[in-house]
Amino acid sequence: GGVQNGGKAEYNYTVDSARASLVRQEDTIIFGLIERARFPLNSPTYNQSYASIPQFRGTLLDFLVRDTEVIQAKAGRYTNLEENPFFPENLPPSVEPHYPFSQFLHPSAAMININNVIWKLYIDELLPIFVASGDDGNYAQTAATDLSLLQAISRRIHYGKFIAEAKFRESPKGYEPLIRAKDKEALMKLLTIESVEEMVVKRVKKKAMVLGQEVSLDRNVKGIKYKVDPSVVSFLYQKWLIPLTKNVEVEYLLSRLD
Amino acid sequence: GGVQNGGKAEYNYTVDSARASLVRQEDTIIFGLIERARFPLNSPTYNQSYASIPQFRGTLLDFLVRDTEVIQAKAGRYTNLEENPFFPENLPPSVEPHYPFSQFLHPSAAMININNVIWKLYIDELLPIFVASGDDGNYAQTAATDLSLLQAISRRIHYGKFIAEAKFRESPKGYEPLIRAKDKEALMKLLTIESVEEMVVKRVKKKAMVLGQEVSLDRNVKGIKYKVDPSVVSFLYQKWLIPLTKNVEVEYLLSRLD
Repeated sequence: GGVQNGGKAEYNYTVDSARASLVRQEDTIIFGLIERARFPLNSPTYNQSYASIPQFRGTLLDFLVRDTEVIQAKAGRYTNLEENPFFPENLPPSVEPHYPFSQFLHPSAAMININNVIWKLYIDELLPIFVASGDDGNYAQTAATDLSLLQAISRRIHYGKFIAEAKFRESPKGYEPLIRAKDKEALMKLLTIESVEEMVVKRVKKKAMVLGQEVSLDRNVKGIKYKVDPSVVSFLYQKWLIPLTKNVEVEYLLSRLD
Repeated sequence: GGVQNGGKAEYNYTVDSARASLVRQEDTIIFGLIERARFPLNSPTYNQSYASIPQFRGTLLDFLVRDTEVIQAKAGRYTNLEENPFFPENLPPSVEPHYPFSQFLHPSAAMININNVIWKLYIDELLPIFVASGDDGNYAQTAATDLSLLQAISRRIHYGKFIAEAKFRESPKGYEPLIRAKDKEALMKLLTIESVEEMVVKRVKKKAMVLGQEVSLDRNVKGIKYKVDPSVVSFLYQKWLIPLTKNVEVEYLLSRLD
């Protein structure tokens, strides 16, 4: 421990404030899905043999994300530990004056980053189920909306670190023996509140219906069509976002006493 | 004239298809406003004396937008003429294979770019009326949401070029004499349909109410609070987006016969 934060009062993450942040982040993720769905799949964006960028080996999405992260790193994005880069190798430091962000996380556990898992899941499993097939040539725009959505999903999942720390601080005596025993299963059980998870899944489905509807001045719009299938959003949360957030929580706790 | 497009069938912009695109773009702009409003003003983002970027003179927003546009230009964003950069000076060309975007616009009129007007309006007039005051240190994230929103607003306003071309093609005989007489006032009058404009302003206000509400599983939420004041959205359209789009239409038409 012993992190200095220049005497600045620490921002007080709590289990309740962390949950409130996750609720707000749901809207950002749903907006991101809707905005990505404006474009068809645009497969050349993800095809290494299409991209022909000098001195770069990878897809157009790799290129755009890696280089945009370099700019955002210089501008200070990753000095806030709520943000986790997809290409952490060789990122430049922030050139901005130091801002005293909260040092709430336990330092040795703060650096958990599962963005490689998120990336693969996004490209291979999520994209094909919520965007239309087709190609309209707007690959750069597509990759930019991919980046915003990937950042929103990554922030949600890695927010597990803040949730885990807040839960740990609320009852360290409940967690310490399980952490020392490296008992992942018992930790997962202690972290899981099924009724809360069910409520999240229901709520994001409802949000997808509200935020993805066609809003018109006509009072009687026949045959409601959603911009993103609400079942995809609830599936995304149930199958991936909630479980991966809890994986991050468990991994965080396992390093919490180091 | 004489633009070659490799024999590819031209995408058929019409007045109706252009209007449908503007309706969809309303959602993108409102999402962008809501996402920017997640952050307080964060004034250091716009303060040249705060930014301390080596070899760069400007604000943090200038830096982030300029360098992100360089990446997106390489990735081919501006080969689609629906997109207009904020820092067009010295943008690198696309390194991607040629995609046969529609050559719908009249070449000498296609390059109209009023992003300098949009930029000033955004920083000086729009930001102060829809974001909370305060500073949470997330300047890079703030600038990234500014960029997305600026791009959405810019696309909407410059879409006036496509609307003007579609209107011109529908009745060239109505426009040609006014263009030759350089009669801006008469062109503006011919382009204006007040009932349509009033409908747009009403619709975006309703959209802001629907898309900016707090969606909860409770059936009775007391005291609806919107993420962005719906009156700000209708004001934005009435005062700036609609008039600036029409300015672009008039400017486009004035060059249409060159």
